[in-house]
Amino acid sequence: MSPRAFITPTIRAQLLAVARGENSPELAVIGATVADVFAGRWRKANLEVARGWIAYVGPRLPKRGDGTQVVEAEGLYLVPGYVEPHAHPWVLYNPVSLLEAMVPQGVTTLVCDDLVFRTRLGGEGTERVRQAVSATDLPARILWSVRLAPQSRFPEHEENIFAQEALALLASPLSATSGEITRWPRVVEGDPILLEGIAQAQALGLRTEAHGAGASYDRLNALAAAGLEADHEAIASEEVWARLELGFWTMLRWSSLRPDLPRLLKGLEPPFPFRLMLTTDGSAPRFYKEMGFPALLKVVSDRAGPLEALRLATLNPATFLGVDAFLGSVAPGRLADFLLLENPDAFFPLRVYVGGRLVAQEGRLLIPLPRWPLKAPHLTFKVAPLSNPATYSLREAPTLSLVNAVITREAPTPSSRALRAFLLDQEGRWRVGAWVEGLMPELDGMATSFTAAFGLLVLGRDPESMALAAREVARMGGGFAWVREQQVVWSHPLALWGFALEGSFAEAVEVEANLWALARQAGYVHEDILYTLLFLTCDFLPDIRLTPVGVWAVKAGKVLSPPEKL
Amino acid sequence: MSPRAFITPTIRAQLLAVARGENSPELAVIGATVADVFAGRWRKANLEVARGWIAYVGPRLPKRGDGTQVVEAEGLYLVPGYVEPHAHPWVLYNPVSLLEAMVPQGVTTLVCDDLVFRTRLGGEGTERVRQAVSATDLPARILWSVRLAPQSRFPEHEENIFAQEALALLASPLSATSGEITRWPRVVEGDPILLEGIAQAQALGLRTEAHGAGASYDRLNALAAAGLEADHEAIASEEVWARLELGFWTMLRWSSLRPDLPRLLKGLEPPFPFRLMLTTDGSAPRFYKEMGFPALLKVVSDRAGPLEALRLATLNPATFLGVDAFLGSVAPGRLADFLLLENPDAFFPLRVYVGGRLVAQEGRLLIPLPRWPLKAPHLTFKVAPLSNPATYSLREAPTLSLVNAVITREAPTPSSRALRAFLLDQEGRWRVGAWVEGLMPELDGMATSFTAAFGLLVLGRDPESMALAAREVARMGGGFAWVREQQVVWSHPLALWGFALEGSFAEAVEVEANLWALARQAGYVHEDILYTLLFLTCDFLPDIRLTPVGVWAVKAGKVLSPPEKL
Repeated sequence: MSPRAFITPTIRAQLLAVARGENSPELAVIGATVADVFAGRWRKANLEVARGWIAYVGPRLPKRGDGTQVVEAEGLYLVPGYVEPHAHPWVLYNPVSLLEAMVPQGVTTLVCDDLVFRTRLGGEGTERVRQAVSATDLPARILWSVRLAPQSRFPEHEENIFAQEALALLASPLSATSGEITRWPRVVEGDPILLEGIAQAQALGLRTEAHGAGASYDRLNALAAAGLEADHEAIASEEVWARLELGFWTMLRWSSLRPDLPRLLKGLEPPFPFRLMLTTDGSAPRFYKEMGFPALLKVVSDRAGPLEALRLATLNPATFLGVDAFLGSVAPGRLADFLLLENPDAFFPLRVYVGGRLVAQEGRLLIPLPRWPLKAPHLTFKVAPLSNPATYSLREAPTLSLVNAVITREAPTPSSRALRAFLLDQEGRWRVGAWVEGLMPELDGMATSFTAAFGLLVLGRDPESMALAAREVARMGGGFAWVREQQVVWSHPLALWGFALEGSFAEAVEVEANLWALARQAGYVHEDILYTLLFLTCDFLPDIRLTPVGVWAVKAGKVLSPPEKL
Repeated sequence: MSPRAFITPTIRAQLLAVARGENSPELAVIGATVADVFAGRWRKANLEVARGWIAYVGPRLPKRGDGTQVVEAEGLYLVPGYVEPHAHPWVLYNPVSLLEAMVPQGVTTLVCDDLVFRTRLGGEGTERVRQAVSATDLPARILWSVRLAPQSRFPEHEENIFAQEALALLASPLSATSGEITRWPRVVEGDPILLEGIAQAQALGLRTEAHGAGASYDRLNALAAAGLEADHEAIASEEVWARLELGFWTMLRWSSLRPDLPRLLKGLEPPFPFRLMLTTDGSAPRFYKEMGFPALLKVVSDRAGPLEALRLATLNPATFLGVDAFLGSVAPGRLADFLLLENPDAFFPLRVYVGGRLVAQEGRLLIPLPRWPLKAPHLTFKVAPLSNPATYSLREAPTLSLVNAVITREAPTPSSRALRAFLLDQEGRWRVGAWVEGLMPELDGMATSFTAAFGLLVLGRDPESMALAAREVARMGGGFAWVREQQVVWSHPLALWGFALEGSFAEAVEVEANLWALARQAGYVHEDILYTLLFLTCDFLPDIRLTPVGVWAVKAGKVLSPPEKL
């Protein structure tokens, strides 16, 4: 629940009784060196907590009562919990299981993209998910970002419904931002539905995020003129400067797919401009296990010092989100979401407190995460057409070639190492097919429901193996299936909307590891197998894509070959 | 009208047509050096304006159409219009006439305190004023700050009504902040009405301002715990640091009453922490004529450079107000409210543009200000008791002594140079009287309706002269009257609620000058005659005050002598 909505005069009165020194706090932290992210200074101070909020920060010693838990923190550094302003909580993990990784790393507030919920469950189903997550006892704050548009090409009327649903969601106190709009060229063109969504979000005080990947200065200028207020797609420091001077709140990204942060920092001189933030932008599970959010602070700190790093991960995003009165700093009247560090320049926390409760210590979550709080609808597939090898015959079709994990180009006629690639309707009514070079030349067959278009993606060189993989995914009601020599060698269900795992974060890491091993064996040479699969069916990255409206040329904005009926 | 509410998708679409270079702008400014207040840099850029908003800022030359006005600005500096986040538009001037002074100085957005409207006109009357001002064609943006409490002592039930009215006003898009709460000790004590108002403002995304004058660190801490988010009462740089680290957005003040800014800056090292702003805080008219808002930027610039000064007067207050997407910078999608300076370090603008319209040049307003848009209710006084010399007899009564313009202390028995001072009900039903030392020992009699308590203040050594002055103010329906040797030597009506002038800013300056001359002749030795008169009847400055509940000791929080019936 948005902190704006849940502070009450009663809680304030209880904070004040502690602030005045009349009542004893429930928690006191004594002797720590506290980060002042406002002025960029360290200071010795004691902290008092009441009702989960900070009642006092300063030199006074607390009044100790029967219920007062006292933490002696001499020699430790007390800093605000980190804020991830731009998470995609459905990259195998889900919004709950992601906390297993991020909370022990010190992230106490996440803004979660709702794309997968919206596309799978619609507006009302998404609101049910948001409400269910809010009602759950979680070791972090979850706020939501509301998409104004999907990120694969859908029939026009569905996009109107999508935008209408967004307006209802924006008005709820669970919403913190809107966007990201991946199809930004339509904003430049003045798409009235998107402009309406941006204006309504602004009237509610919510900022809409762009996704200005590859946009020129003049096109970024147009995105700002349209009312977009943030962007996370700078991949060079001159792109950071351009975004800042055009008025964007600018997120510096280090994700599994785009590890840009160290390069971006080279062109920025400390002290850094306000309006910079950090994001891991929906990284693959392995990234959170091996790198994690503290790695981003460390690289900023090495360039600009620890207080600057902390500011970019706490006060700045809280101000961006309009909730700086409630979180993002260690100050009275804020939520008691804070970390104890052993060293001011090492950001993996010794202890993590959320609402004054110790929730993680030395990398371990101390409170059990609940199971995913809602039953996900079972995905159904029409098995017969999907498991028919004839479905995967392919002759004349566009050929696309992978330049890196996610960028493709149109290629001439397919080589002998090209894969067949199909996006199929779950109901088996249509298919969209293409040849793909540079992906996994040794792959016999694989299928997955983990796609931006939310159909079934089937890849391979052997139609029999492809059909078998598709049947296996259909049988599971969504998931991954890998076939070698017409045998299923590995499969894993994705119980949440055919897209994410219901289970633990560790399970997500394991699934990713299996995918990597299999992909490498099949000749995959790029840097992010999950995003390669996900984005083969998106509508916004250059250049040739499999989408429900056909093989789509992004830059030209046209269909190269339409869907075929099965 | 709040910029949040008045941008529409239609306007955005028109901006985009210009941003894309398809349509020509209505105004283009070519060749200026533009302030980037986000990153703190100057750059050469051209500006294009459509529908009063900025459509483009960058290297491109505009497409010139028939309607395009082109301003060649080579050698000039283009900066955002200044934002005054904390104005009291009723210190003889009114919210319209104040613009006569401030707009030529470059102030294009003002947040106006509603105290006088609220106390005189109630909640609905205040909303009528706000709507009427919004509907008027003005050369600046006016937003409103909504008081949660008055600043003189009123009967309890009236204060509840006052707070209830605040809640309705806060929900309107004309409101930008709430506060300032001068009676902050009641916030520390947890007054439920004030906590309710603060929480409701926060739920709407509005920040409530404290008035933490003289508050210790621990009491400031309590104000932050209560949810107050800003303060403008630091009078030493260590008080600035305390406010920052406790999480307050901190306004640095240079007003006629409190010229603190230069001293505050001495203890601050550039680059300055974010969350600092500048305010003139309801200065007397003369201050705006002789000093003005640009003087504040100059003193910051001398310490920290022009871009830092600009940031404190543009982007920072816009972010504080939650409207940084609409104003406070020169960037696409923002209102075309900007200034042309001849010199980057001299802040009095050559030209002032608001919504792309040239509204002031070289200190002169170019568009006529409208008259005050609403008829003010005529103040009525019951003349008989007010003009009876017997009303001004005084024997046993508390004695207060002026330490400076506004601070008083309790004194022993009155000397022969003490004045009689009375606060009287307009209806002549009661009086509150005291002796005053150190004010104007040679004053025979004066009276005014310009008081924080909104009764009639009558001062003097001669009851006959006092009665005559009171009768003159009653006759005018509010105003000032000065009597020497039982002759009215000067009087001036205050047609707006007995408090402000309906007329021009120049008239306000003249009234103030007359008051100064008369006060000096009567032996006044302090620094602000207007605030001396205004605050004799407030309830929040130390220490002895004339209020409707009696002679009030602020620090003790008690009545020294109750009102007497007439």
